[in-house]
Amino acid sequence: MRDFETKLTERIRRLPESRVRDAMEYSLLAGGKRIRPNLLYAVMQGYRQDPETADDFACALEMIHTYSLIHDDLPAMDNDDLRRGRPTCHRQFDEATAILAGDGLLTYAPQIALQSEWPGEVKAQCTAVLLEMAGPAGMVLGQCLDMKEEEGVTDWEALKEVHRNKTGCLLSAPLMIGACLCGHAEDAEKWHEIGEKTGLAFQIQDDILDTELTPEEFGKSTSDEGNNKVTSVNLLGIEEAADMMERLYSEAEDGIRLMEGFDSAPLISLIEQIRVRRK
Amino acid sequence: MRDFETKLTERIRRLPESRVRDAMEYSLLAGGKRIRPNLLYAVMQGYRQDPETADDFACALEMIHTYSLIHDDLPAMDNDDLRRGRPTCHRQFDEATAILAGDGLLTYAPQIALQSEWPGEVKAQCTAVLLEMAGPAGMVLGQCLDMKEEEGVTDWEALKEVHRNKTGCLLSAPLMIGACLCGHAEDAEKWHEIGEKTGLAFQIQDDILDTELTPEEFGKSTSDEGNNKVTSVNLLGIEEAADMMERLYSEAEDGIRLMEGFDSAPLISLIEQIRVRRK
Repeated sequence: MRDFETKLTERIRRLPESRVRDAMEYSLLAGGKRIRPNLLYAVMQGYRQDPETADDFACALEMIHTYSLIHDDLPAMDNDDLRRGRPTCHRQFDEATAILAGDGLLTYAPQIALQSEWPGEVKAQCTAVLLEMAGPAGMVLGQCLDMKEEEGVTDWEALKEVHRNKTGCLLSAPLMIGACLCGHAEDAEKWHEIGEKTGLAFQIQDDILDTELTPEEFGKSTSDEGNNKVTSVNLLGIEEAADMMERLYSEAEDGIRLMEGFDSAPLISLIEQIRVRRK
Repeated sequence: MRDFETKLTERIRRLPESRVRDAMEYSLLAGGKRIRPNLLYAVMQGYRQDPETADDFACALEMIHTYSLIHDDLPAMDNDDLRRGRPTCHRQFDEATAILAGDGLLTYAPQIALQSEWPGEVKAQCTAVLLEMAGPAGMVLGQCLDMKEEEGVTDWEALKEVHRNKTGCLLSAPLMIGACLCGHAEDAEKWHEIGEKTGLAFQIQDDILDTELTPEEFGKSTSDEGNNKVTSVNLLGIEEAADMMERLYSEAEDGIRLMEGFDSAPLISLIEQIRVRRK
């Protein structure tokens, strides 16, 4: 399998040259962990399908994730100067270009998914799943709730609702898309739940790591703690947060092992890697 | 046929209640001219198909158009306070919510198109056309070139390139989608050209109207002239601009009359209404 970075680059380079294309490429190729594409590839392997057939959806997932980071970093949102140790898109280019780069990635992602080689019904269904998870009933809703949070959401249930939408939906998307591509649309709802648990665990882990690392180590300029944001750690305490994280990862893995006709080894191995990450 | 506003409202209300949904609805239901949906309906009529079967695509087109206005009005872009005589989205809500409302509309538009009743291949193809016209090889590219323009693009050819992408692509989209929905994908390229001519004519007309109307009449707070933006009128002079506008509208109408198996009357009638608009 060719390098995933090459696959992303190829797809971006199909676009006409422009400042906005440069900005899309800058943020897309900033060395992310590629968790969402890797989740999709692991599900394809689990269903014993060729992972490369999911390349367009893998790239689309990473583009949607990257657009959300670009817009989230904007001055009107989190106002971050650094992302993965490099200037954020609006710092490297300018604010207008960053808005357009996000818009460009969000538009181009479903386009390449729909221009993939899959049968019409399959790619229409999978692209709709991607958009539903990313949109105003999913990730965009989570971003919106996250803003409201700063005004007053102070309990764990409300914070969970933020994370369920903001992080969980886009981690559920690759699992659901993989199932649908492999002809197991009937299991999409189960995969949705597994993704939500993984997303919540991942977010709590982020909060825990945030308390342990310096900003330079973490690769972000402002920690949520510095922003006085409510986190799982300051709501639950670090011990309960760590317990909950472990429990959620274990529940997600148990759910994966129970999926019918699915070889859980590649996906569990990937989640174990995420589980032990230090940044 | 039920009121188009009702159809838009219905689709927005399917989303979970949130501040971002309120902002999406606020901007979507601000009384636009609904040119793009009406173009699509007129093409459906021309091909003797039931226009209502295109409702989801008509709503998707208007959502994409509205998202582009919301993001274009942002402080980092055109920084407009008024749109259609009402506060712009970021003035009525706040900047972060306006960014998310645009993102939400851009994500939800292709989702509803893909969840329509059309066969998988048809809706995948038509949604890909919509996204291609809206994205970084279409409207988003046009927005990007338009920003560069302020730094130095001073000739008519470069300005035409801006309008071709920024306005033309999203006027071509309904014509191309209509043709594809009605089984005439082979004519999509011809429709693309007709849309580009209509878009350029429309934009020149905007520039001409801009010189004649007060901001209150025009429903915008800052005219392009006030922004010292290069326009067709200040590049060509008002007489040549008006001549070119008339010629382009006529060429577009001639192209429509030549389309095979197509009853041109409804679409020509719509373009004639646009051609005589005073705002």
